[in-house]
Amino acid sequence: MWKPDRQSKKPLYEQISDHLERRISYGEFPPGSLLPSERKLAEQLGVNRSTVIMAFAELRSMGIIESRTGSGTRVSRTKWGAMPKHTPNWSRYAEGGSFLPNLPFMRRIREALNQHPSLIDFASGELSADLAPSDEITTLMNEHRYTSHLGYDNPQGYIPLRQALVSYLDKYRGIQTTESSVMITSGSQQSLYLITQCLLSPGDAVAIEDPSYCYSLPMFQSAGLRLFRLPVDQHGICPEDIRSLYKKHRIKMVFMNPNFQNPTGTVFSIERRKQLFDVASKLGLPIVEDDPFSLTAFEGAAPKPLKSMDSNGSILYIGSFSKIAASGLRIGWMVAPHSIVERLADARQQMDFGLSVIPQSVAAQFIKSSYFHPHLERLQIQLQFKRDLLIESLQKELPDLVKFITPQGGLHLWCKLLHEVHDGKLLEEAIKRGVVFVPGSVYGSDSGFVRFTFARPKTEEIAVGISRFAEALRALIVS
Amino acid sequence: MWKPDRQSKKPLYEQISDHLERRISYGEFPPGSLLPSERKLAEQLGVNRSTVIMAFAELRSMGIIESRTGSGTRVSRTKWGAMPKHTPNWSRYAEGGSFLPNLPFMRRIREALNQHPSLIDFASGELSADLAPSDEITTLMNEHRYTSHLGYDNPQGYIPLRQALVSYLDKYRGIQTTESSVMITSGSQQSLYLITQCLLSPGDAVAIEDPSYCYSLPMFQSAGLRLFRLPVDQHGICPEDIRSLYKKHRIKMVFMNPNFQNPTGTVFSIERRKQLFDVASKLGLPIVEDDPFSLTAFEGAAPKPLKSMDSNGSILYIGSFSKIAASGLRIGWMVAPHSIVERLADARQQMDFGLSVIPQSVAAQFIKSSYFHPHLERLQIQLQFKRDLLIESLQKELPDLVKFITPQGGLHLWCKLLHEVHDGKLLEEAIKRGVVFVPGSVYGSDSGFVRFTFARPKTEEIAVGISRFAEALRALIVS
Ligand SMILES: Cc1ncc(COP(=O)(O)O)c(C=O)c1O
Ligand SMILES: Cc1ncc(COP(=O)(O)O)c(C=O)c1O
Repeated sequence: MWKPDRQSKKPLYEQISDHLERRISYGEFPPGSLLPSERKLAEQLGVNRSTVIMAFAELRSMGIIESRTGSGTRVSRTKWGAMPKHTPNWSRYAEGGSFLPNLPFMRRIREALNQHPSLIDFASGELSADLAPSDEITTLMNEHRYTSHLGYDNPQGYIPLRQALVSYLDKYRGIQTTESSVMITSGSQQSLYLITQCLLSPGDAVAIEDPSYCYSLPMFQSAGLRLFRLPVDQHGICPEDIRSLYKKHRIKMVFMNPNFQNPTGTVFSIERRKQLFDVASKLGLPIVEDDPFSLTAFEGAAPKPLKSMDSNGSILYIGSFSKIAASGLRIGWMVAPHSIVERLADARQQMDFGLSVIPQSVAAQFIKSSYFHPHLERLQIQLQFKRDLLIESLQKELPDLVKFITPQGGLHLWCKLLHEVHDGKLLEEAIKRGVVFVPGSVYGSDSGFVRFTFARPKTEEIAVGISRFAEALRALIVS
Repeated sequence: MWKPDRQSKKPLYEQISDHLERRISYGEFPPGSLLPSERKLAEQLGVNRSTVIMAFAELRSMGIIESRTGSGTRVSRTKWGAMPKHTPNWSRYAEGGSFLPNLPFMRRIREALNQHPSLIDFASGELSADLAPSDEITTLMNEHRYTSHLGYDNPQGYIPLRQALVSYLDKYRGIQTTESSVMITSGSQQSLYLITQCLLSPGDAVAIEDPSYCYSLPMFQSAGLRLFRLPVDQHGICPEDIRSLYKKHRIKMVFMNPNFQNPTGTVFSIERRKQLFDVASKLGLPIVEDDPFSLTAFEGAAPKPLKSMDSNGSILYIGSFSKIAASGLRIGWMVAPHSIVERLADARQQMDFGLSVIPQSVAAQFIKSSYFHPHLERLQIQLQFKRDLLIESLQKELPDLVKFITPQGGLHLWCKLLHEVHDGKLLEEAIKRGVVFVPGSVYGSDSGFVRFTFARPKTEEIAVGISRFAEALRALIVS
């Protein structure tokens, strides 16, 4: 992001007007388009609003922009030649298309983090830099040679990675499969996208957990699906609810995150798993199992995936490196019947022509390497340590104002607020104080919840972050 | 792909029945699903059909599979417990969804190449291994350190790569832009996908060149677009045709590949470019410029992109590394007004959460490195050499049967067949003789054309490949 140079002899406002003129002439802001407001631009560039007002005045005097009260500042049309020319109405195109934008809260959080990289981040559902195996990846890359063809890869994924995952799934997840049933994706996100786009049709009914990560994804609505809720309690969903949803709405698929569920941290109980398999096989209903967190289990063995007990073939299994290695790798996988893998691989070829071979080969080497197991053990200990820090801070700062169940794995803590506050206001108050979290309503549940990702902030930020959050919360409760 | 072990003491048919039993029990072929035919399996495993027949008999005797005449061999339902259980009807799911599968010819070619990796490949639109900068990429990766956070990246793309592309676009393509107008994608393929999904709505009319790469992409139909044709002659499309399509159908966007067009190799003439800008600005119509080939220009300067002359802001510009470096990198880019970039980045976050940071950072280093320019020069010379080999072979083998215009850049030669032959039959005859190409009808044009990609086969394969193709063609003309 460009910023004006405070050492330069050229006045700030002139640097800004030159910069804007350049961006306008490059077509970034076409004739007729709206510029950011003075307030917003001032914030982005880290200058006083009066400086931006002067820069705008400069551009206005050159006939490059026009302001009308109430409708903001726009790039002039007249400047661009005498002929009656028309730039495409780009903003109409940007609003067109049937694919829905992200939720406003999610966009607000991303915007805040972009603008203020120093915010303490309890919002991004990922590991902090020190938890990722960056050194191991660097070492593996340094040893690497590209002797083979760097051409279009098989859209189902790089074969050596599929082979490595077959052993990994057997060893770590108790899943027996073969490389032809494994498909590599750009993370669980793309697995979910492919399933909703290619296996379901607009109007189809599906069931998702409540609360659930899936609610935060407008892609379900973009695909025209009708969503029905399966309330999650301490032991996960109630399989009987699936049966009644099926009777009423003929649901076509169930989406679940059985182990250390996002956002609640719940593990689906053994008892209910049996009921689930029963219901699924009676109804011939496919279950999508999203399983990114199990290997983070803090103590004892990782909970098993449903897929490892799937004697009837009801489960589409989704895994990912994002939560156990690094989200920036963008490597996930699916285990599915052959006909499904073929269909999804064919479709994805048209969407992005498959993944880059480079991260796929790095990932294959990493899980086969002697680094992998020690990395997992270290990760579990460090995550547990961060969880404990978060809990200590919450107990110290907000003993009377929050309630939660201690998660035994995963990256998140799901926290009930004991006083009613407005989600959006709480977020803004928190951002003002230098901390972000995700409001619970994003996950489809009632307001009054907050998701804290303890994995993401640095260790030393956790206590400070919660103390800032506590200030924000108290400010709203008092007022 | 698993193959039986011919050294083993265990008979082949037993190895095969064990292997199939394993795949069935892992859920790859769920109860009730269809197995590949005996003929197909025999071909895949490289054994006699009789061996597969024996393996099937073995599985049948164990009650694992059932065959019924005329309806193939299926996995038994009964084997899987006495209870009335239902596996999801996976094949119905695989056929569901509104996203269309690839064209049959394209799937046939992919299948043939998977089954017989030794086929001489004039079909895949990419560089051969020796033309890609694999050594350079290996060196850059070996020097690399991941000190920064390997977390979820900005969905608009890795900032250092966007910065590197701003200089690249200025230096090599005469395009002035800023990093906030550049978006990184998984190749031109994903750029086209995002545009069709997010900026257009079902029912919208768009214009594409005829013939065109776009016809080979069912994604245009999957997005519900109505396609209208702009015939391409020696100088490209006629801009007046756009005006009349607009009048009749209110087309909302035009897709073009002005430089060394795929498949024809045509360069859009200067004369007509002026007319195009005139029409586009009069109508306020956006033009998508797909520009993957220009830097391959064999002699003289690379033709300029439309975007470099786009004073009115009508062009959405798409670039890619696939045709000038390596398609397996999966790195492409778009230059677009800010509102469009923001919209597409937001949508793509839901689709795949952005690209892996690793190939993005390798790509950034590569274009900034001193390797880049020499690589381009070497590539141009080698491509021209391969083109000349192809032309020589065609003139030697089929002087009386084909006609073509010599392309001055790009990876392809578009070849008219002077006798009428059936597209599908010609392809099968060619595959039988060990060579593949893409039938012209895939690009939406009349049959009677063939696209040969001279970049893809090894140098020493070109003459052999064309001699096999000539045999295939003559076999059909004689009979
Ligand atoms: C339950 C769940 N599924 C899927 C994802 C997407 O992760 P990725 O695409 O990085 O694998 C997330 C990330 O937050 C998640 O929490
Ligand atoms: C004209 C054109 N556009 C787009 C593509 C897609 O290329 P990529 O996604 O690898 O950049 C191709 C590849 O064949 C092409 O020829």
